[in-house]
Amino acid sequence: MSVTAAQGFTAAGIAAGIKENGNPDLALVVNNGPRRAAAGVFTSNRVKAAPVLWSEQVLKSGKLSAVVLNSGGANACTGPKGFQDTHATAEKAAEVLGTGAGEVAVCSTGLIGVLLPMDKLLPGVETAAGRLSEHGGEKAAIAIKTTDTVHKTSVVTRGGWTVGGMAKGAGMLAPGLATMLVVLTTDADLASDVLDRALRGATRVTFDRVDSDGCMSTNDTVLLLASGASGITPGYEEFAEAVRSVCDDLGQQLIRDAEGASKDIKVEVVGAATEDDAVEVGRSIARNNLLKCAIHGEDPNWGRVLSAIGTTKAAFEPDRLNVAINGVWVCKNGGVGEDRELVDMRYREVHVVADLAAGDATATIWTNDLTADYVHENSAYSS
Amino acid sequence: MSVTAAQGFTAAGIAAGIKENGNPDLALVVNNGPRRAAAGVFTSNRVKAAPVLWSEQVLKSGKLSAVVLNSGGANACTGPKGFQDTHATAEKAAEVLGTGAGEVAVCSTGLIGVLLPMDKLLPGVETAAGRLSEHGGEKAAIAIKTTDTVHKTSVVTRGGWTVGGMAKGAGMLAPGLATMLVVLTTDADLASDVLDRALRGATRVTFDRVDSDGCMSTNDTVLLLASGASGITPGYEEFAEAVRSVCDDLGQQLIRDAEGASKDIKVEVVGAATEDDAVEVGRSIARNNLLKCAIHGEDPNWGRVLSAIGTTKAAFEPDRLNVAINGVWVCKNGGVGEDRELVDMRYREVHVVADLAAGDATATIWTNDLTADYVHENSAYSS
Repeated sequence: MSVTAAQGFTAAGIAAGIKENGNPDLALVVNNGPRRAAAGVFTSNRVKAAPVLWSEQVLKSGKLSAVVLNSGGANACTGPKGFQDTHATAEKAAEVLGTGAGEVAVCSTGLIGVLLPMDKLLPGVETAAGRLSEHGGEKAAIAIKTTDTVHKTSVVTRGGWTVGGMAKGAGMLAPGLATMLVVLTTDADLASDVLDRALRGATRVTFDRVDSDGCMSTNDTVLLLASGASGITPGYEEFAEAVRSVCDDLGQQLIRDAEGASKDIKVEVVGAATEDDAVEVGRSIARNNLLKCAIHGEDPNWGRVLSAIGTTKAAFEPDRLNVAINGVWVCKNGGVGEDRELVDMRYREVHVVADLAAGDATATIWTNDLTADYVHENSAYSS
Repeated sequence: MSVTAAQGFTAAGIAAGIKENGNPDLALVVNNGPRRAAAGVFTSNRVKAAPVLWSEQVLKSGKLSAVVLNSGGANACTGPKGFQDTHATAEKAAEVLGTGAGEVAVCSTGLIGVLLPMDKLLPGVETAAGRLSEHGGEKAAIAIKTTDTVHKTSVVTRGGWTVGGMAKGAGMLAPGLATMLVVLTTDADLASDVLDRALRGATRVTFDRVDSDGCMSTNDTVLLLASGASGITPGYEEFAEAVRSVCDDLGQQLIRDAEGASKDIKVEVVGAATEDDAVEVGRSIARNNLLKCAIHGEDPNWGRVLSAIGTTKAAFEPDRLNVAINGVWVCKNGGVGEDRELVDMRYREVHVVADLAAGDATATIWTNDLTADYVHENSAYSS
């Protein structure tokens, strides 16, 4: 049910002709109120796509009536014309929905450096508006796919209110959010500052810790819209937990669908002096191409884990480091530990634990292995 | 002629049985004086192999009589026993050469986390000492190969004096030096502080700017030994240029032999506000897996260059960035530039220029493409 699981929302997903292959490529999500509160988190890449620049601006009011999303083109590195196109998209949606362009966010995903075919996109917005439905969440989720093999949705329902959402993303997954577009909706009755706090808290420990390939996108956007249609105002902690739960589920779906991957790798750093140390070490391990290849080859090559830890500024002593792979402590006190032959790596999920023996802080980063299929998907055509 | 091109040096390379396949695996380089000045630069990885810890200590005196190098095992993450083994290796060489262990550097390369077979290594040192020759440079260069497909040597001769050297390295090439062992020799008559200054100056702009796969090794070592046998003391600038020239040549040879690579990529950053900015941007581009895949596919995907620049802290404005690939300015002012169809990427060397339009500083980082062969080489067996 995705973005239409919560009351007060309608959505649509259509094929506007932006993608040459005729697949669905335009989604519209509308908040019918009574409240129209919203918050957003965007890529930390300094090269930001036009829709990111637009939506950041729009979100400053804390209010959104609708979101237009397209696949088939990122509208990034497209100069003033690209920004005009995003603006025109918002204006078109505002016109057909009877609202102001300042309440319409725009998200785009696809190839960088190509202008969008506005002669197809603008009529598409009108068509999508004519097909808005309380059951349109799944079609919207399908329309934002690029190299995704499956569409991703998640819903949690608590006492009388719901948080639901959709995500796209399969490559260029890295911190500062993944190459992804995420729209979350809720019928909880909450103001935009509460939404903002809950959303930032959730993305910090979920999407920001998904790092498929170390490459940060120009278009990452996560939006949270609240309609207030349930008439219920949940407590902050309960609401924040629900948002985090949906973000965590969607983040896991992104990792499981990462381009060319054959393994999902959970890098858990424990015994760190600080959470920042744990994240830095986790990310360094998750981005080590040699380790990612070794895991692809089901080789518990803990030396590559230590090499990666050694490049960080985290607090640790080399001769106190411990590493477990799938439960076997193959490295103890910086040297050889349990027999590496005991490590069973046949399954898709691989669990690497790095113990810095320097404190109590922990963090978990999710990544994927590096495969010939990843190389193929990212070398055989422009994406 | 490698390390024996300069007068005053002898070397040997033998098969000591450290490698199970019987290939050469032990090299010995001896400085016969009259001077025995030396300098060294080591990995900045905080997880340092035993031979690195040993050789760093030994170099503090600025004096080296010999270097023992082995392939077939990195002696990294091997604890106190590993350090004892390095010490015993230096003692053995000192004994057979009639010098002190404190004048013997040790370098090891190969798999991390495995103890060296000392029952083979120590007799091997004795055997190698018996085969020292003024023509032994090439055999020494062959004996330090791991996954290298060719051995790497370089020599420059100036007015009456010479700088020569050998290098090994094919993967785990990244800053803080590559996974590499390099021994340079010269018969110029210079003190260790001059050698140190020239070596640091050279590695900073050569080996430190070779970044094949972003993975930093635990064993990287570059040594420079001076025998003074030519009786000539060149001017500093002339000597520094010669050292830089040999380092640059060896660095290029490392890139051309990088594991699984099909392209050598010269990432040239121009128009940077500072050299640090240029290096940061160059490294970010060089490490972008998506760009490395695109270049493998001969796709001039400049959007991935901009994405990589956007993750840095360098001074730039996104709408002033320019990118050329093989001479075609495919991105101008942050947007679409010349026709990407004009880019010819058929040849092995690919030249990416990123113009930050923020100043006059420049830097060049060399890297490779990301290929299915790289994945295969690093997943099919432990290395």
